[in-house]
Amino acid sequence: MNPILVEATRGGIVESAHRGALAIVDADGAAVCTIGDTARPVFARSAVKVLQALPLVTSGAADAFALTDEELALACASHNGQARHVAVAASVLAKAGLDESALECGVQWPSHEVAQREWAESRRPLGALHNNCSGKHAGFLCVGCLMARAQGREPREFVRGYVRADHPVMREVSAALQAATGCDLARAPAGTDGCSIPTYGIALAQLALAFARVATGVGLSPERARAAARLRAAVARAPFFVAGSGRFDTKVMQRLGERVFCKVGAEGVFCAALPEQGLGVAIKIDDGNTARAAEVAMAAAIEALVRLSDDERAFVRGLSDVTLKNWNGIETGALRATAALRDALPAHS
Amino acid sequence: MNPILVEATRGGIVESAHRGALAIVDADGAAVCTIGDTARPVFARSAVKVLQALPLVTSGAADAFALTDEELALACASHNGQARHVAVAASVLAKAGLDESALECGVQWPSHEVAQREWAESRRPLGALHNNCSGKHAGFLCVGCLMARAQGREPREFVRGYVRADHPVMREVSAALQAATGCDLARAPAGTDGCSIPTYGIALAQLALAFARVATGVGLSPERARAAARLRAAVARAPFFVAGSGRFDTKVMQRLGERVFCKVGAEGVFCAALPEQGLGVAIKIDDGNTARAAEVAMAAAIEALVRLSDDERAFVRGLSDVTLKNWNGIETGALRATAALRDALPAHS
Repeated sequence: MNPILVEATRGGIVESAHRGALAIVDADGAAVCTIGDTARPVFARSAVKVLQALPLVTSGAADAFALTDEELALACASHNGQARHVAVAASVLAKAGLDESALECGVQWPSHEVAQREWAESRRPLGALHNNCSGKHAGFLCVGCLMARAQGREPREFVRGYVRADHPVMREVSAALQAATGCDLARAPAGTDGCSIPTYGIALAQLALAFARVATGVGLSPERARAAARLRAAVARAPFFVAGSGRFDTKVMQRLGERVFCKVGAEGVFCAALPEQGLGVAIKIDDGNTARAAEVAMAAAIEALVRLSDDERAFVRGLSDVTLKNWNGIETGALRATAALRDALPAHS
Repeated sequence: MNPILVEATRGGIVESAHRGALAIVDADGAAVCTIGDTARPVFARSAVKVLQALPLVTSGAADAFALTDEELALACASHNGQARHVAVAASVLAKAGLDESALECGVQWPSHEVAQREWAESRRPLGALHNNCSGKHAGFLCVGCLMARAQGREPREFVRGYVRADHPVMREVSAALQAATGCDLARAPAGTDGCSIPTYGIALAQLALAFARVATGVGLSPERARAAARLRAAVARAPFFVAGSGRFDTKVMQRLGERVFCKVGAEGVFCAALPEQGLGVAIKIDDGNTARAAEVAMAAAIEALVRLSDDERAFVRGLSDVTLKNWNGIETGALRATAALRDALPAHS
């Protein structure tokens, strides 16, 4: 039974509570903190997009297509589908000689209010470019186009079906994921993600290890280590493109820069790489609540682990102990990391 | 520790799980089924709107303003803010000689895709009429206007601040809630709801009792019993107005008519009155997930309790065992009532 990590209060009592597990691991695989069951396979979902984007750099595609920081950040993103996200995804595809029709991620109604309002005002038809995964898929397509060139194949033909586990592009993506996590994906639970690529059940301890490797490069091949560092730097320079307006990942990386690389996933999964500490963090909320529970737990972990100024600490505390207000702006309660979580996290050194 | 009532699967394993509690009670207060902790106070939120709407009928306001079934259904609603909902809320206010500016529920961005799209296409400014509670508040204002008339007061002046616990309108609303649930609200945990009125912490067993009373009239004053029957009938005739396109409550009552009166609330609360069985049902999901967990659990309860044709049973099963598909329409998993829940529910008689 995992402990309660996050609770929502109203009128002085707990209204709802979120159980979950959390792993903090160093690049040697040593557990720095284990809360709840961190051995159970958890579908990593979008939390591992930075691992899935490693082949974009290691293949040479990022250089061949002269991708910018914004474009690399979008390849690691679960973006809002705001106009700037859509434009940058289209730009990546254009550099590879493709367009929106090559995307196999499906058309998604924007999940966040700001994007819904932007879309409503743009009166542009909703397309696959709006899908929160369009940047990741555009990155996959760049890898595929480069492979096609190398083999003298017609790129559009070659990339078709790139979302399938047995496609050459997806084999590269899975190889990077397997190398970083140390998880044997052939034996892992396998499912289909929201954007139609495979997603694998991986222990939180392995996910945290992968992010410690992303943080340090230790345990990765030199090419993958350099690629991870480049992607982290790109996201730190263009954090709007990894999520968007009002989003946790964007706010945290806008404020803390390269000290934190964090990436949210569906169903309450959240991973982070902390380069200064050489640590990786992986969280899963049992009930799948990402937007309030996994984010609050991650904020508490960042608060405990990362060196912060007083102002930065107050900023992060505002994400781990959130005042809830209603439609009239009246305070109704709070969303906060529990004492059980805070006490189990390592004390700040 | 409450048991797992609902789980989401992917790739053949459980990805996320929702714990919760459920009470089924008859109009004498006898527990027919108790799952988990049904004594703990739970903020009832919007699940009790039908109880909060009783004064609209008992005060004579529904007759004085000649409210239609659609208008009465909207008074019990958490509606989508679709164009027809907004129009009917405006109509109620106009009958009472008021307009949108009298509403104190705040302006809410529509929560559901269909309403977001409708709003985007209408290009109408978003206002308090779009708030999912605008029909309930319009009903409160009708009660207030009638009180003002009786006291020879200026209605607009009299109704100001109607959301406060000590306003004459809200006292009537609380009295109805207290009489139906048997909960002493003066001693109950009190919070502020999303629409700024008070919400109280009430045991699930008491909420279920209130809905058994709504189902049967037993245990209510004759006026409240008639009012409850009238509100149930109005919702059964106009179920679009209690929720809206694509919503669980609307779908269930469109299909099953007066055999089920169900009403969702925020933070995983769900109540239902089953007139043929003379039972009330109340559910709370620990983690506050309404849209998938409380609905699936309620569907399982309806399936177990209500007499259904084979077609109806298949329809309800489609709500308690839901196939999940991604943006490309590919099946990714299921959302389903657990065996623990199904086995604990009463066997169909």
